[in-house]
Amino acid sequence: MRAIADISARTKLCAVIGNPVGHSLSPTIHNRAFQELGLDFVYLAFRVEDVGAAVSGMRALENFRGLSVTIPHKVAIIDHLDEIADVDAQIGSINTVVNEDGKLRGFGSDGPGARQALVESGASVASQPVLVLGSGGAARAIAFDLAHRETPSSLVVLGVIEDELGALVQELSEKTGVNAAGELLTEDSLERRIAESRILIHATPIGMHPREEESLVPPELLHPDLTVMDIVYNPYETRLLADARARGLRTVPGVEMFVNQALLQFEAWTGERAPREVMKQVVLDHLDG
Amino acid sequence: MRAIADISARTKLCAVIGNPVGHSLSPTIHNRAFQELGLDFVYLAFRVEDVGAAVSGMRALENFRGLSVTIPHKVAIIDHLDEIADVDAQIGSINTVVNEDGKLRGFGSDGPGARQALVESGASVASQPVLVLGSGGAARAIAFDLAHRETPSSLVVLGVIEDELGALVQELSEKTGVNAAGELLTEDSLERRIAESRILIHATPIGMHPREEESLVPPELLHPDLTVMDIVYNPYETRLLADARARGLRTVPGVEMFVNQALLQFEAWTGERAPREVMKQVVLDHLDG
Repeated sequence: MRAIADISARTKLCAVIGNPVGHSLSPTIHNRAFQELGLDFVYLAFRVEDVGAAVSGMRALENFRGLSVTIPHKVAIIDHLDEIADVDAQIGSINTVVNEDGKLRGFGSDGPGARQALVESGASVASQPVLVLGSGGAARAIAFDLAHRETPSSLVVLGVIEDELGALVQELSEKTGVNAAGELLTEDSLERRIAESRILIHATPIGMHPREEESLVPPELLHPDLTVMDIVYNPYETRLLADARARGLRTVPGVEMFVNQALLQFEAWTGERAPREVMKQVVLDHLDG
Repeated sequence: MRAIADISARTKLCAVIGNPVGHSLSPTIHNRAFQELGLDFVYLAFRVEDVGAAVSGMRALENFRGLSVTIPHKVAIIDHLDEIADVDAQIGSINTVVNEDGKLRGFGSDGPGARQALVESGASVASQPVLVLGSGGAARAIAFDLAHRETPSSLVVLGVIEDELGALVQELSEKTGVNAAGELLTEDSLERRIAESRILIHATPIGMHPREEESLVPPELLHPDLTVMDIVYNPYETRLLADARARGLRTVPGVEMFVNQALLQFEAWTGERAPREVMKQVVLDHLDG
């Protein structure tokens, strides 16, 4: 086992920056994984107010290899990086930075993490109608990633913040060419849109611990051809997922997306294949109840 | 034992910055000490070219608690700090930074480390004539510290770089009021000045591994009333110290100063009493031969 006392002048640093970061699970997930593979890295957490200064510092500190970026810095950090992919520029936020010899590359791992979780569950996105519930940052990342990297027949977004929803759907159409549509989320729109969909991605905070009994989706709308993914990962099985499972539907828990996005970060920083089961176990161990 | 996997969102960071830093012993010394006391700190090493950006980054990263500063940044870093003591401003360089809630305080620990080593050996500086060999950064730090915090009857500096020597002696006199004098280091000046002294502090690189057979001081000059301190810490017993010991003189090895300066840094960062023997053993374990 690698100990604190084994840290040397060659040890590389990764960290999460945000405000607050005091309850972040990321240090435990990544340090456990570094330990598992015997990699000479450590992962810390820094509360940051001035994201530009933090990034300048990262550039100046040679062994500072990678960042996870969380609220409120996921948008503002982009102006301080050297390179991001088109899909991330369109999303307008990133959650990962890799320092490649002083050149800072940013990317989002939430969209790819969600997509991998869907694919690994056996669901097929190609030529299928996809419905996303929610129009916030996570919904946006997932929708743009699917539009760029898969070929859904349509991508419908239901949300409650009209401006945010309108902008997301318009930009999806214009920038990716996907067949996108949006509607305000109502009982009626939910019923119609779910009936037309094969993949349902719930990307709002409804059902998150401690309000575990809540679900946006009346169970009777869950038809047999639907795959249901929830980005909420605490509890492991949300009410929505429990309802879907009770009806025999394919379900994709939020923990899979959460673990995948961490794996993608880990692999970008270390160049090594991440120890998936170790990282997932850390998440499972920290779920409430 | 604390493992890499125990690092959490509360773990604090200390680091050495310099260029190069790849062979620094500081990470091993401080991490071993953190481990010994079970403190939630890690210590890394960062090669840094832009010291201003590194300091801005330290300010922006809340858990970044402390720096050791080494060549070439010990002078330039002062402009980026919020507070240094008068003695350190006069010395013109520092090797330690403490981040106190975003306020950066710098100080030099080499001078105090050398002084403590002398005092702990049983030597008394008060009202005694002190001779320093060398006029570089270490000699300067030690001379100013002694002038501020002890009361030597005189402080004589012998050096070979005339401008540096002249500036040091003039500033010592003007800024501290100590009875300071300087001369170029020659066989003649060495003989006269050692004869007049009670404490001899060798602060040049002569005798350092791998040129261990060299000494600035002919053994016959080492009179019985002299305490001899060498700032060279590798080898543990330099030729100068061996000659002094063979004559029955009190000797103070450079390892003591080196360990003391690290202890002072550790205590400033952690607020805890440093585990001296653990830290000293790291240094001893890494000496050549």
